[in-house]
Amino acid sequence: MIFRQLFEPDSSTYTYLLACERTREGVLIDPVIDTVDRDCELLRALGITLAFTLETHIHADHLTGARALKAKLGSRIAAPRMGAAACVEVGVEEGTPFRVGDIVLHPLHTPGHTAAHHAYVQDQESAPRVFTGDVLLIDGCGRTDFQGGDSRALFHSVHDKLFSMADETLVYPAHDYGGRQVSSIGQEKRGNTRLGHGRREEAFVALMAGLRLPYPRRMAFAVPGNEACGRCPPDAPEEYRERCARHDQG
Amino acid sequence: MIFRQLFEPDSSTYTYLLACERTREGVLIDPVIDTVDRDCELLRALGITLAFTLETHIHADHLTGARALKAKLGSRIAAPRMGAAACVEVGVEEGTPFRVGDIVLHPLHTPGHTAAHHAYVQDQESAPRVFTGDVLLIDGCGRTDFQGGDSRALFHSVHDKLFSMADETLVYPAHDYGGRQVSSIGQEKRGNTRLGHGRREEAFVALMAGLRLPYPRRMAFAVPGNEACGRCPPDAPEEYRERCARHDQG
Repeated sequence: MIFRQLFEPDSSTYTYLLACERTREGVLIDPVIDTVDRDCELLRALGITLAFTLETHIHADHLTGARALKAKLGSRIAAPRMGAAACVEVGVEEGTPFRVGDIVLHPLHTPGHTAAHHAYVQDQESAPRVFTGDVLLIDGCGRTDFQGGDSRALFHSVHDKLFSMADETLVYPAHDYGGRQVSSIGQEKRGNTRLGHGRREEAFVALMAGLRLPYPRRMAFAVPGNEACGRCPPDAPEEYRERCARHDQG
Repeated sequence: MIFRQLFEPDSSTYTYLLACERTREGVLIDPVIDTVDRDCELLRALGITLAFTLETHIHADHLTGARALKAKLGSRIAAPRMGAAACVEVGVEEGTPFRVGDIVLHPLHTPGHTAAHHAYVQDQESAPRVFTGDVLLIDGCGRTDFQGGDSRALFHSVHDKLFSMADETLVYPAHDYGGRQVSSIGQEKRGNTRLGHGRREEAFVALMAGLRLPYPRRMAFAVPGNEACGRCPPDAPEEYRERCARHDQG
């Protein structure tokens, strides 16, 4: 199995490449439109055919590279089936493993950041991993104040689903804003300031309600853009439109 | 490949089990005498034959389980060849891969905590890992004030050898005192308070010289005990002698 963790610094997004060494097929989890060229170059260098892009959720802070990668490489667009846009070709859901060559990912419905958010569990013996999207970050979690966000739902997604996994399961989040790359379930159970041991639901809900975060600077165009699988919306700011326009296939 | 991270809470030591799925042979890195029964039970449950125990260095804070595991399971005792005690059966050294079934570990001479300290690199495509012993801890490092410790050497072991590895290489330390389990090279390069980006050798040396750490409570018996591969020394404190006596084969 080939694995790469890739970083897009403008939105602090981690994209993950998983590829099967036998079939040379790969999947990119949460690709970003800004880094489509980098991703294509990496796939070429590794000799991997991109079979799928796969989203954890509809992002509000960047445009997905799904549409651009499909146009360039013929990859199919996978995303949670729940509330999926028409452009999604493969709807994933909890209970149905998602396969790419010999790689098996188990989708886990983990609402709270968005209503349809899914994490993906790779339950391999030697290095169990979970790609947690925005529902669980390293010593943090995604915000819960828009897009169907719900702090109670997030608390239960993390406590009931993610924290029931083995302590040594590696946690790979969709973002980190402090240069951290990886954590583990045991580490987050013990140490996550918002959600770790001893944190109660009521206190978490109150904490999230009191955050008063700024309105996401890209949400107005990123959400509709991502609902079209990464189409660059005409109302995006000039600098962003330039960045994504050359990948946009109209 | 089978992988388990095991914790001994009294000395906050991580022991790592690696085993080959094909041959069912395994190695325990830095086993602790206190947890020999747990380790035997786990090996039995997984159907693994313990081929080796492998030390990163001569520990001063606990007794190794190497001798007891050899007595119970017939495992061979491996440790850095450099300055190895007579009881060490397999001396490892940089440049010579250490193999257990299909598992390959690359020993890396990483002095600083002790003069003969070695880290072990598992250079697998999907999840490169380094078992860093006490030379690099998560947001920390081992002390450098005894057993041939040398803060300059430690600085260079980390900066020249460990930090030259790929950012996504997982860092598995021999200890953690804060419930953390795993880090990565990139994360430590950026975030390690003592050794990360921008930390200069002179400042690190001054920092280590000024730590004024207490004398390790077990060093007087742990070091000679470990120089005999985990023999319980007669001058160990009563409570410790009881814990290890039943494993001691004289």
